[in-house]
Amino acid sequence: MTLDTKHITFTGRMVIVGFGSIGQGVLPLILRHIGITKDQITIVTAEERGHAEADELGVKFINLPLTRENYAQVLEPMLGKGDFLVNLSVDVSSVALFEFCHKVGALYIDTCVEPWAGGYTDPSLSPSLRSNYALRETALSHRAAFEGGPTAVLTHGANPGLVSHFVKQALLNVAADTGESTEVPKDRAGWGALAAKLGVKVIHIAERDTQVSNEPKKVGEFVNTWSIDGFVGEGCQPTELGWGSHEKHFPADGRRHEFGCDAAIYLMRPGASTRVRTWTPLEGPFHGFLITHSEAISIADYYTQRDGNHVTYRPTVHYAYHPCDDAVKSVHELAGKNWYMQPSQRLMMHEIVSGTDELGVLLMGHKKGIYWFGSRLGIDEARALVPYNNATSLQVTVAVLAGIVWALENPNRGIVEPDEIDFQRILEIAKPYLGELVGAYGDWTPLQDRERLFPEDIDHDDPWQFKNFRVA
Amino acid sequence: MTLDTKHITFTGRMVIVGFGSIGQGVLPLILRHIGITKDQITIVTAEERGHAEADELGVKFINLPLTRENYAQVLEPMLGKGDFLVNLSVDVSSVALFEFCHKVGALYIDTCVEPWAGGYTDPSLSPSLRSNYALRETALSHRAAFEGGPTAVLTHGANPGLVSHFVKQALLNVAADTGESTEVPKDRAGWGALAAKLGVKVIHIAERDTQVSNEPKKVGEFVNTWSIDGFVGEGCQPTELGWGSHEKHFPADGRRHEFGCDAAIYLMRPGASTRVRTWTPLEGPFHGFLITHSEAISIADYYTQRDGNHVTYRPTVHYAYHPCDDAVKSVHELAGKNWYMQPSQRLMMHEIVSGTDELGVLLMGHKKGIYWFGSRLGIDEARALVPYNNATSLQVTVAVLAGIVWALENPNRGIVEPDEIDFQRILEIAKPYLGELVGAYGDWTPLQDRERLFPEDIDHDDPWQFKNFRVA
Repeated sequence: MTLDTKHITFTGRMVIVGFGSIGQGVLPLILRHIGITKDQITIVTAEERGHAEADELGVKFINLPLTRENYAQVLEPMLGKGDFLVNLSVDVSSVALFEFCHKVGALYIDTCVEPWAGGYTDPSLSPSLRSNYALRETALSHRAAFEGGPTAVLTHGANPGLVSHFVKQALLNVAADTGESTEVPKDRAGWGALAAKLGVKVIHIAERDTQVSNEPKKVGEFVNTWSIDGFVGEGCQPTELGWGSHEKHFPADGRRHEFGCDAAIYLMRPGASTRVRTWTPLEGPFHGFLITHSEAISIADYYTQRDGNHVTYRPTVHYAYHPCDDAVKSVHELAGKNWYMQPSQRLMMHEIVSGTDELGVLLMGHKKGIYWFGSRLGIDEARALVPYNNATSLQVTVAVLAGIVWALENPNRGIVEPDEIDFQRILEIAKPYLGELVGAYGDWTPLQDRERLFPEDIDHDDPWQFKNFRVA
Repeated sequence: MTLDTKHITFTGRMVIVGFGSIGQGVLPLILRHIGITKDQITIVTAEERGHAEADELGVKFINLPLTRENYAQVLEPMLGKGDFLVNLSVDVSSVALFEFCHKVGALYIDTCVEPWAGGYTDPSLSPSLRSNYALRETALSHRAAFEGGPTAVLTHGANPGLVSHFVKQALLNVAADTGESTEVPKDRAGWGALAAKLGVKVIHIAERDTQVSNEPKKVGEFVNTWSIDGFVGEGCQPTELGWGSHEKHFPADGRRHEFGCDAAIYLMRPGASTRVRTWTPLEGPFHGFLITHSEAISIADYYTQRDGNHVTYRPTVHYAYHPCDDAVKSVHELAGKNWYMQPSQRLMMHEIVSGTDELGVLLMGHKKGIYWFGSRLGIDEARALVPYNNATSLQVTVAVLAGIVWALENPNRGIVEPDEIDFQRILEIAKPYLGELVGAYGDWTPLQDRERLFPEDIDHDDPWQFKNFRVA
């Protein structure tokens, strides 16, 4: 695979819904790596942002916000059998769009299961129903009816998405390095058995974004390296995590859902207010935000082992996210305003002067302690690889590209989650764009350096308990 | 008072111990406003920082760290009867220095009661003994013996210091605006009675520093607008607050000291890990860090009303500090490293491009709800007023200047705290350097916009309970 490999030829129509940082970033990749011409593509989006970029690439740009009322009418002339809808929007229901695609026979991909506008913070919904768990259960409830129908790839960005493939590669690496069988499991049961056998108790999606700009954040401005609406939306959803079978201390503010797979729990507070201890090889120990993401649930669910109805093994899985420094500051300000979004937003792009996005999965509790596997992508490298991207967006956009290619290669799979996709094919397509793809062991645990100044409520017997990770 | 008023003439020797941001910032003010020549002054400090600035002003600079072992020997030839020690150091015991001054007959001032190196984080000391409460009690234990001796002004910077004078002016303003008696109280009992009569339940020292630079913070760097050693030291001390008589919910992690005045409590956690809701007129609501400071204790103590041994009135008093954005980020990183200081530090000075330090006192619970009174000083104005300062340091340095002048005018008062000093004289001296000195009422309470997304554990009956301010 090189930077000019054409992975597949596509002769249908492609509609890209939403054209923010990810839409703009993925378009050059699609044109570069898929046999497609620019006149096959139409962008439908809710604002003028990206119009100049679309014009520069010669792709049709329609500024027309999709709503509950108009989406079918707008999309109907644009999509039919074998066409492709790439959903990179916010505030447009994923379920509505993939149902539409199923009806007309089009393929579909998104990077998160998005509700209609306001769904993340609708006070008339219970916290349980504002969760990604509920959104995922709703989406998956269509699975049986869609079986064998046009492929609809759910939640295939960096995370959720790419990290599910990282987990599989990481499990194989840990197996090899600890002398366990290294045969590649063939199905869900096999992967779950491998994770259980290795003793992986906790998986963090551990990310440290060090990108900085020399344009200081203003008071009343939310600054981030990717979609601010997207980040604030998920940051205001309940904290959610896959809840492992080894956990002994159910959080006082934790709740179980009263429906669905039961692989995850939620806390009665926004994810952007919940901090956890985690670790990456370049940064060492740090505090991340426990932002809800679909992968926390899908991975926990996928690796669950059962004896009848009894869960015998499940890892605790969650995102532990240190966004760029300006976003940390923006979250602090947002919390101070009781989660009312700042009046202005800035997506950091050209003004970034340095930094790396270190994004990977951290497998903990196995024989060698902890193992991080993931991508280290610097801003300069990201810029050199493809236009309209930074280090953060490129990790997402290349996963969208890979998901599109896989869907085109597997067009009749119905609804699929990342964990159900061929991880080797995805990594093969994504690899040229991930910078340094590395694995690293460490001896860190969340008990390291604790209680130096004050006694703390921790479980000394098992370092891998969630209560030890959580920052109180 | 103008920018060239000579407030007093001083013919003795002056030793400045410590020459960081405050030392460098106050020296031009001393030379401008006190009748003193540069050859009367000697700087004794622990590093080369500031050497060029001292040379430029023609003041003798000695790089010689003071220690428990050498301080008396070093200072003995430099200080005698009627001389002045200005202690602006870190890691040098305030008690050791003012005892020395008392012995030789010299005047003394500092901006906080500092222990010898490591005292803030010495794990062999209990949290109670690492507190500012303990440091204050130790310092005040010398008061009786020093009565009528050379004046030793304790903790007279911006805060602690200036804010005690702001509280008095604010009380008079609220009294006038709510139709209460506006006679200026003559003593401690009178001030306490006024605060009680007005119904002031809570006083925050509410500060929002918006200064920013265009040089982004590096990973592993602590950036601040004033002493980083000072901020990290106090940030790692226990959270401390004056504990008001209206409080109904003693914090689960709260502790009372087993000695002393009992006006304050501490929490079993670092102040830099404790966030509280607060408000300033320009910023509106925000989250500040509840960093321990001597004023939280001295103000609560000073305004306490008793009936025999029974406390009938005491306000809850604490600092609620939003440092500059880069310091917020630095604190997040410091917490992630379990309070081990970053390997590099940067005091933001010339690279500041904009911002204001909005520092004042927020009086809450009276008839008009909330009233903030304080200083709004912009970086450009601070730079125009005096060299070697930014908006944050100037609010401190002018208070040091005013404290020195007051001590020279009142040379035989023994040990005094800010609350015991003539607030009108101090404000008169400081005013030309405080930017806009303003008072503003507001209708904010810590219950505003709460429980929008999730239920919270709050006291709806009394908005002014500490549990409502604290960010859980």
